[in-house]
Amino acid sequence: MAGEATFVALMRALACDPAARGLNDDVAVLDLGDTTLVITHDMMVEGVHWLPGQDAADIAWKLLATNLSDLAAKGAQPLGVLLGYTLGADDARFAAGLHEALDAFGVPLLGGDTVASPGVRSHGLTAIGRATHVPVPSRSGARPGDRVWITGPVGAAMQGFAALRDGTPGVDTRAFRRPQPRLAQGIALAPLASAMMDISDGLLIDAARIGAASGVTLALESAAVPLPATLPADQAAAALRWGDDYELLVTLPADVAPPCPAFAIGMVLADAGAPLWLDGAPPTGPLGYDHDHPPGLTGRNETLADRE
Amino acid sequence: MAGEATFVALMRALACDPAARGLNDDVAVLDLGDTTLVITHDMMVEGVHWLPGQDAADIAWKLLATNLSDLAAKGAQPLGVLLGYTLGADDARFAAGLHEALDAFGVPLLGGDTVASPGVRSHGLTAIGRATHVPVPSRSGARPGDRVWITGPVGAAMQGFAALRDGTPGVDTRAFRRPQPRLAQGIALAPLASAMMDISDGLLIDAARIGAASGVTLALESAAVPLPATLPADQAAAALRWGDDYELLVTLPADVAPPCPAFAIGMVLADAGAPLWLDGAPPTGPLGYDHDHPPGLTGRNETLADRE
Repeated sequence: MAGEATFVALMRALACDPAARGLNDDVAVLDLGDTTLVITHDMMVEGVHWLPGQDAADIAWKLLATNLSDLAAKGAQPLGVLLGYTLGADDARFAAGLHEALDAFGVPLLGGDTVASPGVRSHGLTAIGRATHVPVPSRSGARPGDRVWITGPVGAAMQGFAALRDGTPGVDTRAFRRPQPRLAQGIALAPLASAMMDISDGLLIDAARIGAASGVTLALESAAVPLPATLPADQAAAALRWGDDYELLVTLPADVAPPCPAFAIGMVLADAGAPLWLDGAPPTGPLGYDHDHPPGLTGRNETLADRE
Repeated sequence: MAGEATFVALMRALACDPAARGLNDDVAVLDLGDTTLVITHDMMVEGVHWLPGQDAADIAWKLLATNLSDLAAKGAQPLGVLLGYTLGADDARFAAGLHEALDAFGVPLLGGDTVASPGVRSHGLTAIGRATHVPVPSRSGARPGDRVWITGPVGAAMQGFAALRDGTPGVDTRAFRRPQPRLAQGIALAPLASAMMDISDGLLIDAARIGAASGVTLALESAAVPLPATLPADQAAAALRWGDDYELLVTLPADVAPPCPAFAIGMVLADAGAPLWLDGAPPTGPLGYDHDHPPGLTGRNETLADRE
């Protein structure tokens, strides 16, 4: 939407502090001397980021998990979160899901605010973490010769979303409802990564973002990308684009082996005229979740960085 | 509202970390060793926290100022803010007001998120500051014999709100539209204060909160409370209750003079059976902004701490 691009451009003009990283990353990185903080804030809106009638416990889980995923992509250890919550009929379920998620990820609730709203509800969450490695990985450090790795499969969230939307029985929908931020993997990878981000918007678009920010071409091989065993073959192309998977996409120097389970899916080339190649050529059509033309409901973990 | 009290009780059970201060303060206080962070998050909702048709530049200013006021009450120096913004037709005005306010208070924008919403808009802001004095002042340190001080008058926001709502010409509405967080005063007072908070919800209710948290009685003299020169005499009682003034309310030992302009408005007594006395007796009727029975539109800077 034109208004969004305009607004983000206006915000970018205000974000001159180095900690803002020019709004070109998923997080703010605040150097306090002894400690480097990594901070992120994401919102979710009823009917936009969650399905009508969806269990509020899952909404709470996802609000926390998607923010923690941004910390994971920077190798940050979460210190705590603040919640901005709009009250509704399902408050107890939301609280139960938040409790579960805070326990699962070992993160304390530090504070926040509740409001009543006469209309559509929205919730926000701020996650604060401590960088475990400095410099904190960015999107812009990928170098020609690096290998491209991903920490897990893509496509399971897409399958879960479709099953939940259509009421399909017998499908595991947890990847969509209860994503897992890759915190341990991010901490292990941060000292080695030349660039890193989470693939919330889709593997191809997020790989293209690393390519563009780094001034290189990420050349991916589709056959090397891990997919869920249950994914029908005709959905493989969509799985590379759908997103909401919250795995980490990382580039490592060629002689560095990942310190955690990961899949090699491509190489970094010198700028070959496009930030992304797929199977030897720039891919055609939409690469993933496009903030200018969102395809209906999504749970994407978009930030100001991706609104241009 | 019953749902809110229940939800806040559920949140309190999750907020076991000492940094959360049991959700009994306006901020989280996170000890990082060399640095102590003070963090707050407040939301504002269309039609609840701002008047329909109000200039979005004023909404942006107030969203920032009310969050910074929470930092001021802890003597914290702001390090930066993250914005959660719902897009609308007045984005450019919002951006302009945010720019003005960030410049005025010398605070950088660090990041955030924008969303589109099909309905009522809400915005959130997270402010992060560095404590300039440890221990960080709380609500609970007032001691019998302390004096009670306020950094400025109450009632101007009430006058501004009424004029704005009614379209009254010739009235200065800035106190309502463009509140000033008392950052310098908070930093000067923090090393001396036995208790401190901002009086967002009304002088009487906030004084009662310090009394209750400290297990003492704050005995205020209404004649000593500074009021705007333009305030009609029959609105003086309302001015003590209306709130939205964002002055600091602070208790100091009797032998300590405030290091900044301030008005002595009462004494701290040993617990006299009520957390607040006004002119020698517990006041009757509503003390201020009551979260259980909000009186229509308000701009109050309420937090989880005040929802019981």
